[in-house]
Amino acid sequence: MSAERLLLGSGPSNAAPETLQALSRPLVGYLDPSFLTMLDELADRLREVFSTRNRMTFAVSGTGSAGMEASLVNVLEPGDTAIVGVNGVFGGRLADVASRAGAEVVRIDSEWGDIIRPEDVRAALEAHPEAKVFALVHAETSTGVSQPIKEIASLVRDHSALFVLDTVTSLSGMLVDVDGWGVDVAYSGAQKCLSVPPGLSPISFSDRAMEAARSRKAPARSWYLDVTLIDGFLTDRVYHHTPPIPMLRALHAGLGVVLAEGLPQRWERHERAAALLAKGLVERGFSYVPPEGHRLPMLHCVRLPDGVDDVEGRAALLSDYGIEISSGIGAFKGECWRIGLMGYNATERNVLTLLAALDDVLRR
Amino acid sequence: MSAERLLLGSGPSNAAPETLQALSRPLVGYLDPSFLTMLDELADRLREVFSTRNRMTFAVSGTGSAGMEASLVNVLEPGDTAIVGVNGVFGGRLADVASRAGAEVVRIDSEWGDIIRPEDVRAALEAHPEAKVFALVHAETSTGVSQPIKEIASLVRDHSALFVLDTVTSLSGMLVDVDGWGVDVAYSGAQKCLSVPPGLSPISFSDRAMEAARSRKAPARSWYLDVTLIDGFLTDRVYHHTPPIPMLRALHAGLGVVLAEGLPQRWERHERAAALLAKGLVERGFSYVPPEGHRLPMLHCVRLPDGVDDVEGRAALLSDYGIEISSGIGAFKGECWRIGLMGYNATERNVLTLLAALDDVLRR
Repeated sequence: MSAERLLLGSGPSNAAPETLQALSRPLVGYLDPSFLTMLDELADRLREVFSTRNRMTFAVSGTGSAGMEASLVNVLEPGDTAIVGVNGVFGGRLADVASRAGAEVVRIDSEWGDIIRPEDVRAALEAHPEAKVFALVHAETSTGVSQPIKEIASLVRDHSALFVLDTVTSLSGMLVDVDGWGVDVAYSGAQKCLSVPPGLSPISFSDRAMEAARSRKAPARSWYLDVTLIDGFLTDRVYHHTPPIPMLRALHAGLGVVLAEGLPQRWERHERAAALLAKGLVERGFSYVPPEGHRLPMLHCVRLPDGVDDVEGRAALLSDYGIEISSGIGAFKGECWRIGLMGYNATERNVLTLLAALDDVLRR
Repeated sequence: MSAERLLLGSGPSNAAPETLQALSRPLVGYLDPSFLTMLDELADRLREVFSTRNRMTFAVSGTGSAGMEASLVNVLEPGDTAIVGVNGVFGGRLADVASRAGAEVVRIDSEWGDIIRPEDVRAALEAHPEAKVFALVHAETSTGVSQPIKEIASLVRDHSALFVLDTVTSLSGMLVDVDGWGVDVAYSGAQKCLSVPPGLSPISFSDRAMEAARSRKAPARSWYLDVTLIDGFLTDRVYHHTPPIPMLRALHAGLGVVLAEGLPQRWERHERAAALLAKGLVERGFSYVPPEGHRLPMLHCVRLPDGVDDVEGRAALLSDYGIEISSGIGAFKGECWRIGLMGYNATERNVLTLLAALDDVLRR
């Protein structure tokens, strides 16, 4: 058994060594001048990665799903309408979270493995001029679908709804253009293409979203995720909660690695590794769930060839080669694998390693 | 300037070295057999530290305030009554969080610096037989007050309300007896007496509290903190959210250190360090906010002697000696300091160091 895991599943991916080093540094307090300087730098780095000038850009003290909840619970009030695209687990989760925030949820459903169609979005927006929020997943980790955003973004811009976008799996692995697309709330996760350990959710609120959070009739249903209180700490250092100091340092370090490489270079590296993996998987009889042209570079959801056992295959990869890949979930459980090439891990070397290990395992 | 901080404020305290080592280990996935074994051990260790046999004992993926929110949002439904003791910042926060969960909040107020009086609790419980929750802070970090629990616990046992207890600052620094006191939900923070970095909130739900969470009419207002969904992962490994793997390993390691020392030994160490600090502070003209007999060993809230400047004094300790202490908050801002001797830091050596540094700073 390999002592060190190669994490080629749906996340977490392996963390960049710089982030693990940052985690182990002796603690400082959350009002320490050195920590506050670091926090400001962290926000600048996040703005660059999200491609936004939004003032209110920070990391939620929880994992990606906490960021999802923070996105919705701050802007939705009981009785508001939220239109949500649902074509996998995370779209379904958006709908659930919006409903718990008190919203009437209008779902735009697509088959798992398909994109949310722009014409369906247009119809929903037209049918619901009152909608307060339109929410969508960019990279659907449960199906490997890459949701085209540009056309939909232009439809949302013609509507008063706030545009909430889940970029948990996409951020820094492919183009995410928060300001260019007119996204009002974008959130992500540390542990995917950013290659930081799990525990934080980068997030960015437009001024319009902050205005919605400030002008609500009743306080947000979550105190912990209330962005107006978090703003009080970030801006005026008013105590809210004790931030997870080591994780914030790790994110700061990880974003430094991302920006030193350069975002376009990083996207291209993901594309190269993805192309090599796709070729290898198809040659071995795997078939992609998402249609051509709508496949994520960092998450490959593929149907198993005949005769390959889901559980045995994954167990052999893990026990004999220390390689973790993920099962299908929901509708795809038992039938599909999900293979991730995220951030630090998106290399041709890792692809070759995986394919060679697969050849051994599939031969048995 | 000292490179390494001595964190003698309201938290975080310095982390035990074992926890920082655990943070920097290479990642594994959250379904990795080694991780799942570790999670089960972590739960056993938490049960021992909380002194409970509660099955549903785990760490919330957020800081202490996320634990507070998880405690209330799972058991309170709109229209329920929650009785909350308020004698400082954290009691006030409990009331706020309960209200956002939809509850009608009945406050039992005491002056900041005083305890919540058992006779007031008795009166509130009698006046509100319908109350679903009674919530209290054990160690009020904003005032240094140690809330006596035993008498109040016996009053709560005669009432149907669920007993929610904040042990963020007390856990492992003084007696916390969840089962003995009949507490239904207890939560804590990693970064106080457990000497683990901030980022997790240990929590324990009694079977009665779990029953309340399961039998509610509508889902909890928080998806992220929904204990019925988290139970699905802990029990059946059904995916909920990606747990903060390095922080969970750090907590596991930190709890190992706590239990290796022994809880009674650890409480006694806190007492010894506290007695030495109290003597030194009183000799130097500081006076305690809480009355004698109700002072926390791990958090000393003291009024400044005449002529000592709050901001200058703390700044000098930090810049010249690398020692962090905390200001007063709320009603005590500018007038008090809060000095913490938590977990790893609760040593006579640290007390002597602080007093010597104070002597230099106060002399200026």
